[in-house]
Amino acid sequence: MKTIPVVKEILNANDQIAEENDDLLKSHQIFALNLMASPGAGKTTFILATCNRLPPALRPGVIEGDLASSIDADKISARGIPVVQINTGGGCHLDAPMIRSALPQLPLNDITLLFIENVGNLVCPANFKLGSDLNIVVASVPEGHDKPYKYPTMFVAANAVILNKADMIEVFEFDVDYFRRGVQMVNPNAPIFIVSSKTGAGLDDWITWLAQQAAPKG
Amino acid sequence: MKTIPVVKEILNANDQIAEENDDLLKSHQIFALNLMASPGAGKTTFILATCNRLPPALRPGVIEGDLASSIDADKISARGIPVVQINTGGGCHLDAPMIRSALPQLPLNDITLLFIENVGNLVCPANFKLGSDLNIVVASVPEGHDKPYKYPTMFVAANAVILNKADMIEVFEFDVDYFRRGVQMVNPNAPIFIVSSKTGAGLDDWITWLAQQAAPKG
Repeated sequence: MKTIPVVKEILNANDQIAEENDDLLKSHQIFALNLMASPGAGKTTFILATCNRLPPALRPGVIEGDLASSIDADKISARGIPVVQINTGGGCHLDAPMIRSALPQLPLNDITLLFIENVGNLVCPANFKLGSDLNIVVASVPEGHDKPYKYPTMFVAANAVILNKADMIEVFEFDVDYFRRGVQMVNPNAPIFIVSSKTGAGLDDWITWLAQQAAPKG
Repeated sequence: MKTIPVVKEILNANDQIAEENDDLLKSHQIFALNLMASPGAGKTTFILATCNRLPPALRPGVIEGDLASSIDADKISARGIPVVQINTGGGCHLDAPMIRSALPQLPLNDITLLFIENVGNLVCPANFKLGSDLNIVVASVPEGHDKPYKYPTMFVAANAVILNKADMIEVFEFDVDYFRRGVQMVNPNAPIFIVSSKTGAGLDDWITWLAQQAAPKG
């Protein structure tokens, strides 16, 4: 009977540290997004395309999560955006202690919008709070329109769903209505933004919504 | 000190059941593949394209793994191929006990080649033996050429790597040489087959290799 309390304690520890991360971010007036997606859905390109179009009050910073490599962080850094790379060393998701370690390495007084790019994985990241304000799920057209039906837990966790690589909808015969119904079946309230990070299509609506969410309340 | 032995026992239990699965499959002269990939890499379409081209001695059966839905199993069944759907109910990978439960539901005396389509996840499935003869990793062009660098543990586990959706190489400006170097860096011996399950390109080489692997030894 000893193992069950141990597991509980670990989960609670993550959630407690997530709350501390949230407190730290709020004390610096930073709004944080946890971006989750399959490998190769285009999270990094989407972050860069978003950063290109942000209103001046939203000054971005990025935490990149990957099993290995600094490929994504290098792309972000090349654009002059503050970035920290977390290598999980095989781990399938980011957790709150990793974010706690990364935050002091960012210029917290200079940024107002933090993108946390989770490990590419449409399953495990949904189970670990990081201390972010919103969960954003990025799906992409080449993955197919059946993903909400096959990976419902991820879509349940979303505050908004991005459908990326929309310039490929015809090439892949992607059924947008079927995808939309799948999202709404498990998560009726999450807005769905259909975008192409490559062409810029659809990004204006997403950024208008994001700016509203990030605006100081009251 | 009580929790460490418990974890070990669970891991050993999986491996032991994987060996039992392997024994059962061998007793029926069935050669088994564990197909692992990101969500939407085209595993099911690749299985169907392969089945269309198999030599007569290779009579296929399929185990489909998904968190939810029977979308993939329905596609396989529609083609008259014996199939069992495993729904993990949120679990991020298949494990050996799940395969043990599924096997008796297949016509084991009629099939000689078993495709086990794992949950779409480029991280976790690599850590769980199922009792298969080969691990096949299916990457796809739209995911990008950097996947071997960012998800090395999956590519380390591969006996062969399929690069699917090759008809999209130009559209996505996919650098095949960079991808190939990434695979060879962590796994110098795995053959890489560049295929399009849609057009059929490259499938002949893959099937020739597969038939050699599956041929009774000695």
